Formats: sequence, structure tokens, C-alpha cells
Amino acid sequence: MTTHSLLILPGDGIGPEVMTEVRKVIDWFQANKGIQFEVSEDLVGGAAYDKHGVPLADETMQKAQEVDAVLLGAVGGPAYDNLDFSVKPERGLLRLRKEMDLFANLRPAQCFDALADFSSLKREVVAGLDILIVRELTSGVYFGEPRGIHSDDNNPQNEGGRVGINTQRYTSGEIRRVARAAFELAKKRGNRVCSMEKANVMESGILWREEVQWVHDNEYPEVELSHMYADNGAMQLVRRPNQFDVIVTDNLFGDILSDAAAMLTGSLGMLPSASLGAPMANGRPKAMYEPVHGSAPDIAGQGKANPIACILSFAMALRYSYDLGAEADLLEKAIEKVLADGVRTADLMGPEGGTPVTTSQMGDKIVEAL
Amino acid sequence: MTTHSLLILPGDGIGPEVMTEVRKVIDWFQANKGIQFEVSEDLVGGAAYDKHGVPLADETMQKAQEVDAVLLGAVGGPAYDNLDFSVKPERGLLRLRKEMDLFANLRPAQCFDALADFSSLKREVVAGLDILIVRELTSGVYFGEPRGIHSDDNNPQNEGGRVGINTQRYTSGEIRRVARAAFELAKKRGNRVCSMEKANVMESGILWREEVQWVHDNEYPEVELSHMYADNGAMQLVRRPNQFDVIVTDNLFGDILSDAAAMLTGSLGMLPSASLGAPMANGRPKAMYEPVHGSAPDIAGQGKANPIACILSFAMALRYSYDLGAEADLLEKAIEKVLADGVRTADLMGPEGGTPVTTSQMGDKIVEAL
Ligand SMILES: CC(C)[C@H](C(=O)O)[C@@H](O)C(=O)O
Ligand SMILES: CC(C)[C@H](C(=O)O)[C@@H](O)C(=O)O
Repeated sequence: MTTHSLLILPGDGIGPEVMTEVRKVIDWFQANKGIQFEVSEDLVGGAAYDKHGVPLADETMQKAQEVDAVLLGAVGGPAYDNLDFSVKPERGLLRLRKEMDLFANLRPAQCFDALADFSSLKREVVAGLDILIVRELTSGVYFGEPRGIHSDDNNPQNEGGRVGINTQRYTSGEIRRVARAAFELAKKRGNRVCSMEKANVMESGILWREEVQWVHDNEYPEVELSHMYADNGAMQLVRRPNQFDVIVTDNLFGDILSDAAAMLTGSLGMLPSASLGAPMANGRPKAMYEPVHGSAPDIAGQGKANPIACILSFAMALRYSYDLGAEADLLEKAIEKVLADGVRTADLMGPEGGTPVTTSQMGDKIVEAL
Repeated sequence: MTTHSLLILPGDGIGPEVMTEVRKVIDWFQANKGIQFEVSEDLVGGAAYDKHGVPLADETMQKAQEVDAVLLGAVGGPAYDNLDFSVKPERGLLRLRKEMDLFANLRPAQCFDALADFSSLKREVVAGLDILIVRELTSGVYFGEPRGIHSDDNNPQNEGGRVGINTQRYTSGEIRRVARAAFELAKKRGNRVCSMEKANVMESGILWREEVQWVHDNEYPEVELSHMYADNGAMQLVRRPNQFDVIVTDNLFGDILSDAAAMLTGSLGMLPSASLGAPMANGRPKAMYEPVHGSAPDIAGQGKANPIACILSFAMALRYSYDLGAEADLLEKAIEKVLADGVRTADLMGPEGGTPVTTSQMGDKIVEAL
């Protein structure tokens, strides 16, 4: 009988409390479906810094490399705002992405029917919304060298005497592999990919456009491909998001556009993500799953956090890392039912009311619905 | 009697046709208010490329340096998509920005009451919207060196064998001067500035945050300053745009965030912009004005374009370059009246109807209302 290994990294802020609810779901699958999970837990972000002086210990990194999947809560918070750049909580997350080589970050933006009125956009604009942003996650300006803040003292024109540098750098190979991931995903969905960059002002954007086109022409001619400048992309996402199926874009544009896309649905507490790398020995991709929301330090520890994004991230793990698609469907259906029944954490409480629940009660309701 | 010099650069696509309507407004002010404009006209973008083989001729650049203000239509179009990067229409625009040193790009996003239903966002979310994005316009990844596409042939790991590079580079002095522009503007508005960057992952973002804070603490302690990561900024713009007064951000983030902000109002054909530099001999800033919309080649020449964004850009010129604030008010009021009367170009035609007009008729109506 297969055991499914999972490393849980709750992280900071509301990370630990939403993860407690995922544990209930895992327990339910073990008890009722006879699926064996081998769960371990460790520290990341500020929590790791507090204990080890670094936002990710080497042993944790090692463990992450060995498991079938990692599930991460969230990192960061005001307590760590003044830390040196090299040990900021975010560096723990970036180290995991980089060393596990998780180049394809899948961020679905889906609008749940029961929550369509939650969006700041009109119901008819977001109803049925179902787009998938595939963000490159291991390269670009997040990782490019040279980088840093330097003295520029002998430049009399430069009041302040400093200069800050980052490098946007993409290889053709890095672009091709994430493009392939996007085309593969599109084939299972609406068969359309829109690639976004700023090829009108950046040479790295020209390379991006050319390489995505190359992969299309040589390997996926049957998928519909379009290109859009990222500024126009941001506009179109606000104007008529339903025009998109799969969007593929780089690390920095993906960060911004996926957050805008997430907010279209109005309920950030609902959105999961998966970061996938190359196939492992078991044939499935190296993978880390995380909710799109942050650590929300302002509401941490108050039972207000919505655990659904993290539970849906676990559903993505069921699907992509454990090959348990039917179980993922089951879990997603349970969540839809609970929402349709009007069960609402604070963030989902609209004018039309509903049954208010705490983080923990939401977890219980979902388990009940399973 | 002062003469107000203006260089008109209609550019490509709908640029020339919206500029024709601005000419009517200029003529009206000359005839009825005795204001002397010395208007010259020249080529930029694809139109300049067609004639000179470059997107901006040196003589045009020279003229732009000498006038009180430049008014630009739009550049680019599919006819020029395959041009070499160095002669793309956009390079003409970027050369103007860079050589005139127009470091502060002002992009107001205002929702006109008569058009609030036009937005894809709910009326209550955008009604009364009035935010101003101040985008740094002469530095950052748009201009940083090194840049380009290089061969990476001897890297066996790099399928495709190429690498694309751009450099995000900011000096402390560049950040301080645009921060000052933002604080000055905030003092005349809601007295609040929100600065956006990605200081959690980019050192150039750390420098940005520190220098904006420095200018605040040393020169504008009375203005309220907050900082936000740009991805969260994109979210918050969609979620609750009214929380912002002035936003200050870098060239690339400003490009994307200002387009998203513009789209919130639902009517891109309405939004002007001003790009300002250092004061000239007359005490007023070197300046270029442009509508936020692009060249819209798909509707060019059909009388469908909305000239209001370009006319409002001229109103900004009246205010910032010619010190004719009362005349700017008059022009803005005329536009509001025409909109309140239900006069609508195609892009403003909603379900509630209105009087459909062509580009040229819209210009006439505005002049009538003056
Ligand atoms: C926390 C931060 C480093 C991260 C990023 O910028 O990638 C976050 O915004 C995200 O989108 O996952
Ligand atoms: C046309 C293009 C070069 C330009 C930019 O990227 O700055 C445009 O998008 C803008 O925002 O003015």
C-alpha cells in the first residue's frame, strides 16, 4: 500500500491555524478512505527565523526535497519587517521555490457561484469566472544577478548617493519549459493560452514572446495562442476577465497579475495555488502547494481566518501529487456544498448574511460534508 | 502678450483623428479668449518611421525641447510589429520621455458620474473615484543597462541557447525627485501618498521604500505616507480603489498599475496624462501630455474614437504648462456637461442609451458647450 508523504510548513500569522483545519481533512481521508499519509511538520519564514536565525533551515530544505509534496501556509509579518533582506521570511519561501526548481506556479482564479456577489466587480462580469494563471517561479528579476544596493558616492548628480539594482534575466530554456506547462494545462481546459510580457520595451520580453511562439509552433500548434502586453493584460483582466483561459507570464508580472486576478473573485480566502517542478522518480512533479492569501497578521489567532484556500491547496496536492483526482473532486464538492449552505467565515460575510463560523468550525463543516 | 507654444505629435492609429478635435478647442480659445497659441505639428512613432526610418527625427526632438508643451496622440500598430526593437514606434515615445527628462508621469483615474455604470466594477465601488498615480518615467527597467538578447550557446542546460536581459536600476536621487512630485501633488489633494514596490523580493524596491520615507521624514512629515507591495497594490486597486489618494511607484509597476486603475473607471477613452520634468526658464515644468489610451488601430479612421482623453490632456497642459487653470476648469466643465447631456461616442454607449456621435461630432459638442 502506497504511503503519501507530505511536509507541512505552517509558517507565520494565520498559517498555523488554517493548517490545523487541513489536518482534520487529512485525518478524515485516512480514517474513511484508507489512504495513508505520512505527515511531517516543520518551520518556515519568521517562525524558522525565531528558532534557527534563518527563514529556512537546511534540514527542512532537505526534507522538502524528499517528500511527495509540501504544503505551506504563509510567511511574514510586521515583527520581521526590519530584518536584513537575506533573512526575511520571504527568503525561506523563495529558497524552497528555487532549490526545488518549482518553475510553474499554477494560480486558478475561480469564482464560486455562492460568492459571486462578493466581488467588487459586477456579478455578470465575474460569474462563472475560471481562469488559470501559470507564472514562471524560479527565475526573472526575483533571482537575477547582479543585484543589491550600492554606494554611488562619487556621482555628484545622485542626491543620496546610492543605487539599487536588480536583473531581469530569462534563458530560452526557462521560457520554453513553463510555456510547455501552460500548453499542457490548456489542452485539459479551454485550449487557449495568452502570453503576457512587455516586448515593446524589454528585450527579455521579446525573447519571452519568441520562445513561447516557438513552443507553440513546434509542439502545440493545435492550442490557440495569443500575446498581450502586460499592462493591457492588467486592463483586460479588470474589463472582461472571462476572455481568458490560461495566461502564461513571468515571475514578476505573474506576481502582480495573479493577485489582481485573485481579487476579481472577491474572496482571496478561497484561492489555492500549486508550484510544480520536474517529474520525480514516481513520475509526478516535485510540488509545493500554498494558499494565495498572505499571513494576515492582523487577524491571526482570532479564529477569523478562512481555511478554504489552504484546504483547496491540499485538494490540488491530491490531484497533482498523489494522483487522487476522485478524492480531490470529493473535497472540492464538500466545500461547494458548505458554501451553498451559507456557512461563512468573517471574510465571506456579505449583506445577504449566512451562518457565521470560526476557522475551526469551517473545518468541521467541511469534514462533515465529506 | 504671451504666446503659448505647443508641439502636436499626433502619431499613429487614432492619434491624428483625436488631435483634430483638440485643434477645434485650441481655435475656440484663440478666437474667444484671446489666448495666443503657437502650434506646430510633427511626426512620431510609425508615422515618423515611414518618413524618416526612425520613430523620432532629431529635428523633432529638438523642437520638443524648445516648446512650452508637447501634446502626443498615440504610437504603434500592427504594421510596425515586426520592426527591429531599436526603431519600434514606442522608441520614439521613450526617447521624448528620456531626453526631455520627464520623470513624473501623472495619471489621474477619475470616474465621471455620468459614466459610473460603464465600469465592470460595481457603481458603489467606483462612484466618485479620484486617484492620481505618479509613475517614475525616465529610469528603471525601461532604460537600465545592460540589456539585450544574447547567445548562450555554450550552455548545454539552456535549450534554445539564448538569454534575454534587462536591468532594473534606480538611484536614490531619481527616487527622491519623483517622491517630491508625489508629495507636492498630495498636498493639493487628499494629503496622502501610498508608495508601491516589491521591497520583499527586490533590493531596488528596498532603496525605493527607504528614499521615499527619507523625503517624507525630512521634507513632508505633514503628508500621510504608507507603503504597499505592488502585488497587494494591484489587489487593493480592484478591491477598494477609493482607499487611495496619490500612489507613487516606479516605471514598470506604474505602467501596469496605472492601466489597471484606468480600467476601473470603465472608460479608457476618457483618461489624460501629463509627464513633467524640471522647471524651464519660464518657471513651468518641461512637459508632454498624452491620452492614456493607445493607438487603437482596429478603429482608426472610422470616426469611432473618443477624443475626450486627448482634449482632457490638453486641459492638463492649460493647467500645468500655461498657468491657465481657469481655462482648464472651463474645458473640463464643458466635457462634463456634454456627458451629462448623454452625448456618447461608441465606447461610451451603454445599455441606458444616449445620443450617439462620431469623433468629430463629439469635438463639436464640446466646443459648443464651452
Ligand atoms: C511573499 C512573496 C515573496 C511572494 C512573491 O512575491 O512571489 C508572494 O507575493 C506570492 O505571490 O507568492
Ligand atoms: C507604449 C508604451 C511604450 C508605453 C509604456 O510602456 O510606457 C505605454 O504602455 C504607456 O503606458 O505609456
